[in-house]
Amino acid sequence: MQQNHRGKAGFVFSEPPTITGYAAVVGKKEAEGPLGGWFDIVSKDTHFGQSSWEAGESEMQRRALSKAVEKAGMGDKMPQAVFSGDLLNQCIGSSFALSNRGVPVLGLYGACSTMAEALLLAAMTVSSGACETAAALTSSHFASAERQYRFPLAYGGQRTPTAQWTVTGSGCAIVCANGNGPYLQGASVGTIVDMGIKDANNMGAAMAPAAYQTIRQHFEDFRTAPEDYDLIVTGDLGLLGKQILLELFDRDGVDLSSRYDDCGAMIFDTKGQDVHMGGSGCGCGASVLCGHLLKRMANGSIGKLLFCGTGAMLSPTSTQQGKSIPAVCHAVSITAERGAPWTM
Amino acid sequence: MQQNHRGKAGFVFSEPPTITGYAAVVGKKEAEGPLGGWFDIVSKDTHFGQSSWEAGESEMQRRALSKAVEKAGMGDKMPQAVFSGDLLNQCIGSSFALSNRGVPVLGLYGACSTMAEALLLAAMTVSSGACETAAALTSSHFASAERQYRFPLAYGGQRTPTAQWTVTGSGCAIVCANGNGPYLQGASVGTIVDMGIKDANNMGAAMAPAAYQTIRQHFEDFRTAPEDYDLIVTGDLGLLGKQILLELFDRDGVDLSSRYDDCGAMIFDTKGQDVHMGGSGCGCGASVLCGHLLKRMANGSIGKLLFCGTGAMLSPTSTQQGKSIPAVCHAVSITAERGAPWTM
Repeated sequence: MQQNHRGKAGFVFSEPPTITGYAAVVGKKEAEGPLGGWFDIVSKDTHFGQSSWEAGESEMQRRALSKAVEKAGMGDKMPQAVFSGDLLNQCIGSSFALSNRGVPVLGLYGACSTMAEALLLAAMTVSSGACETAAALTSSHFASAERQYRFPLAYGGQRTPTAQWTVTGSGCAIVCANGNGPYLQGASVGTIVDMGIKDANNMGAAMAPAAYQTIRQHFEDFRTAPEDYDLIVTGDLGLLGKQILLELFDRDGVDLSSRYDDCGAMIFDTKGQDVHMGGSGCGCGASVLCGHLLKRMANGSIGKLLFCGTGAMLSPTSTQQGKSIPAVCHAVSITAERGAPWTM
Repeated sequence: MQQNHRGKAGFVFSEPPTITGYAAVVGKKEAEGPLGGWFDIVSKDTHFGQSSWEAGESEMQRRALSKAVEKAGMGDKMPQAVFSGDLLNQCIGSSFALSNRGVPVLGLYGACSTMAEALLLAAMTVSSGACETAAALTSSHFASAERQYRFPLAYGGQRTPTAQWTVTGSGCAIVCANGNGPYLQGASVGTIVDMGIKDANNMGAAMAPAAYQTIRQHFEDFRTAPEDYDLIVTGDLGLLGKQILLELFDRDGVDLSSRYDDCGAMIFDTKGQDVHMGGSGCGCGASVLCGHLLKRMANGSIGKLLFCGTGAMLSPTSTQQGKSIPAVCHAVSITAERGAPWTM
């Protein structure tokens, strides 16, 4: 058997699978942000034509999956497995999206790290030969998340300075054994890190240490360095978490600043859109990856990307019980050109 | 690349990984049931020494993982990846169980199908060479599930005739590339099936059609038949769901009755323990598999097992919104002896 692990938590995809189709669906506010022109589908209706925000979130997933399948040139064929998850209790965004569609589904819960987790498992499934095509699919919705995690929107509650704004968006990537890239080279699976942050409105601070842990482990396991990437991007640390991550690496004498960004800081105009620390949610990383970053890989402006999904694994119950916030980060290495430095 | 898929939704593990250690942790009521003597660890304290039922559920997972690692003879080494999930909102049972343990975690949500999903993904990860060891881990807890899905226990609410009793239990299986069995041969990934059942107290009826769909697809994809198995077991259909599944196969002229059972029907004395239709929950299938069935494979009384995790993907929110119950079932084929009919 081929040894496809590296170091402590690194997986190598020995015959790198490729992302043949990808699409992002977002709401009105996301379309008004700096990346607005990049997304595949924009809806001004926050219900996406459905009777509830939750059903609207499922509809976003269906549209993202259909569009990605179409762009992958699969005709009316569906992927052989869909890895999907979301933030709603019992992941109803995903299960209702895929109900009675005849497509095999493997449900995930990685909080906002779900897109990276889905992508790495889809890549492993395809590279193992268990599937020829698999999809990574996730979503979040501002309104369904607010009323579940915080307060009913009609309360008009004041948001704290470190709060982030849940992105209304969905992203889908189709992973195939054969194609012309971008290629999935390898991934680092995260451990759960809890540094004692208890403020559920400061998830950037809770998640930054998990991102630091995984990215540092990635460099170590794969004997690689920041300079090997054109862009290292986290899913939704926001402005504060981004700053903390830079400081954690700075303590090690590693300067990430010239090649690091965060999807939560990118998707909104953090000065003009009243989002405080920026975007968050499963749909944040997913829509920026599938709507923006993969397209920049296709147009040649990013050659090598480390996509790091970041998740805060809290629930309202754990917060009410006074618990701190466990966090996780999974990192996936994606290259525009085929090349396999890690198989040597 | 090896083609390791079969038919519509079948995965083959080409070099069958093996389950080298397995353990089940249960509560008092489960220990008083017909399988009571089989479980590795029993606690009479429903809090498992913790301050809340939710924290107790996490503690069950830690004990199951430790015991399984010990029985696998791994010393102080932990698995290279843990696939885990549970029923609590945002899967806090799992994330708090594994917080700050330094072990790579991939979170799943498959409702009560999670043990089968975790086992198939652990097997794929190991057989792909991405890990040498991976764990499948899940749990449920009667008291944490009741107050989250239904009513505070102190209400003393009446339970309906078709209700099931959430098992307080956790199961863990360690999957390795090398060992002496039982062997993981292949798996069938389920699609989400919703036949319109809206009664959240009748999950057996909601899940039986998903189990039927996956098991039928399994026979078709792998060109196998009920007679090829000594036991086909579902996770938690309960007495009613079990009867419905038998009837669905009977319509096809297939008689499953002599080789089929359900973990929810097995774990409790459904006449004497006031559990109505039997056990349910992620911990039901997991504790019966890891506490009882795998031990029967080791002692020679089961040669070939089809373990079918069944999950009802509802949430209290979807129920309140009048939605019906989507369900899923994943099936994993396990053999006592190494043998690879599906690689031909």
